Amino acid sequence: MNWCNKTDKRYASILKAIKKYDTIIILRHEMPDFDASGSQFGLKSWILHHFPTKKVYALGENHKYFSEDNSLYPKTDILLKQPKDYLVFILDVANFDRIDGKEIIQNASYTIKIDHHIFVESFGNIEIVKTDYSAACELIAEMLLSFKKYKMNQEAAYYLYSGLVGDNGRFQYSSTSQRSFEIAAQLIHTGIDFTDIYEKMYTKNLEDIKILKYLYNHYQISKHGVIYTHTDKKALEKLGVEREKMKAYVNLFSGYKESRIWVSFTEDAEKNIWMVSIRSRKIPINMVAERHHGGGHANASGARVETYEETMQIIQELDDLLK
Amino acid sequence: MNWCNKTDKRYASILKAIKKYDTIIILRHEMPDFDASGSQFGLKSWILHHFPTKKVYALGENHKYFSEDNSLYPKTDILLKQPKDYLVFILDVANFDRIDGKEIIQNASYTIKIDHHIFVESFGNIEIVKTDYSAACELIAEMLLSFKKYKMNQEAAYYLYSGLVGDNGRFQYSSTSQRSFEIAAQLIHTGIDFTDIYEKMYTKNLEDIKILKYLYNHYQISKHGVIYTHTDKKALEKLGVEREKMKAYVNLFSGYKESRIWVSFTEDAEKNIWMVSIRSRKIPINMVAERHHGGGHANASGARVETYEETMQIIQELDDLLK
Repeated sequence: MNWCNKTDKRYASILKAIKKYDTIIILRHEMPDFDASGSQFGLKSWILHHFPTKKVYALGENHKYFSEDNSLYPKTDILLKQPKDYLVFILDVANFDRIDGKEIIQNASYTIKIDHHIFVESFGNIEIVKTDYSAACELIAEMLLSFKKYKMNQEAAYYLYSGLVGDNGRFQYSSTSQRSFEIAAQLIHTGIDFTDIYEKMYTKNLEDIKILKYLYNHYQISKHGVIYTHTDKKALEKLGVEREKMKAYVNLFSGYKESRIWVSFTEDAEKNIWMVSIRSRKIPINMVAERHHGGGHANASGARVETYEETMQIIQELDDLLK
Repeated sequence: MNWCNKTDKRYASILKAIKKYDTIIILRHEMPDFDASGSQFGLKSWILHHFPTKKVYALGENHKYFSEDNSLYPKTDILLKQPKDYLVFILDVANFDRIDGKEIIQNASYTIKIDHHIFVESFGNIEIVKTDYSAACELIAEMLLSFKKYKMNQEAAYYLYSGLVGDNGRFQYSSTSQRSFEIAAQLIHTGIDFTDIYEKMYTKNLEDIKILKYLYNHYQISKHGVIYTHTDKKALEKLGVEREKMKAYVNLFSGYKESRIWVSFTEDAEKNIWMVSIRSRKIPINMVAERHHGGGHANASGARVETYEETMQIIQELDDLLK
């Protein structure tokens, strides 16, 4: 029941390292999501709150949800000159190549990796990888809360909560555990305005309404209930939307009782291909993706195909699964 | 931090009453939502788990989400004959008139009311009303978890979790507190399959897609950004949807950066009126509803007006607020 009592011994070594180095650099994966940015700014805020004389830098490109008027996170820092004798944290990333700002690692005095993804490769003098945590923020919050002499500050809790919620879909996915709730309770206890976090995370704009309108006007249903949408080059141009953003709408057609498989096809006019995203409720669909030079997980796969005809072949194969 | 330690002394009296009566009837409000049904079946399951010889009846119409093939809750019970010497629980309801099955209260030996709504009127030999709880299930779970000699059973936890999530919007609304998370953690600890609960709660059907398509094709935006939809009698008939169900879609247009007020108008052809639902982000709008013989909360109000012209007058007044 009490996760706080099961403190990892390595946490003490990390606190020791934080105390030892005057310059601390915090990195995370490229194209940061809520968990990456939340981890980074949560840890930075906590360190500066308790050790205000240290120099702490959060490096990397800015979060896609960063904007001047609606900033969930502050801007990332810029290093004007190469520091000396510094500690580097690498958060929420399993592959060395995906680290945003990895060039700074080479001359680091000491490195600490904290992650919750499936282990890929080793880097860092201390490595803590716990795959049963719903977010890197869950793991980092656990560590910081275990430092009983140092109270969790509200600003750090704010960032850590955003990442916790970001990676577990607001306590929706099966990665959510008793510990996720217990840590959320402790973060809320600092008095953070979590409705403000949600508002910043969930804000949509009128461009999104147009995308939804397009998708609801163009979805199709196969004989046995596969729901699918094709968004071609012309539609993307008319809507003024990027391919990657359109792809993110694949789950618009999830959760319908009559449909256990849903698919989005988005045209990549530069490469002259269709990007395929296949999702399902319970039924494994990855073998269909694999047959079309793609792959992925049992209920979430992707592929890239060259012709419209092949997209319809995929629908036929998925439809057969629902017979 | 430890909500378990702050046990309400009345809880012990309630446990005593449960032990005393062999027949226990559990009521809640009409048109049950997740919190009403979750409270009712959670308490019933807990009592039967620990006192299997008792007769426990959950009365009232079935939950709207109850269906043969996708039942989140069991069917409600039917009383074949008037029982003698029985205890009645009345859960999640503040108005006596809204109790589903209130006729059974008259001959009850003892009555216990447990609610989290704003107090309206007194009924029940024991009355526990705590408005700072995000759900009646949060309050009932707290009570049952405080009975240390009786372990929370998984089935009761399943129902209580559904109601907790149902009333706080999966930990979204500001009613969510540290305690909500701590109780969620304890319920999850029993090993419930919460993803199964979500799947049953969130299942949509293809009729819903048609409603969404209609709304995205018919929304309008006023000069300063009020988003609104009119759904008239003809549209309701064509979609084959009930007025009340359509009204529930008012929040489809919430959360857009450019719009701080959104409104739905649904025609009630029988009464020859338009039902008006007004929602806003932060800006108070209830005075506009009041000016049109309606009312409600600062950010969620309603009204009923007789003409299409008056609906447009409302839009004009709301638009003025955004100038």
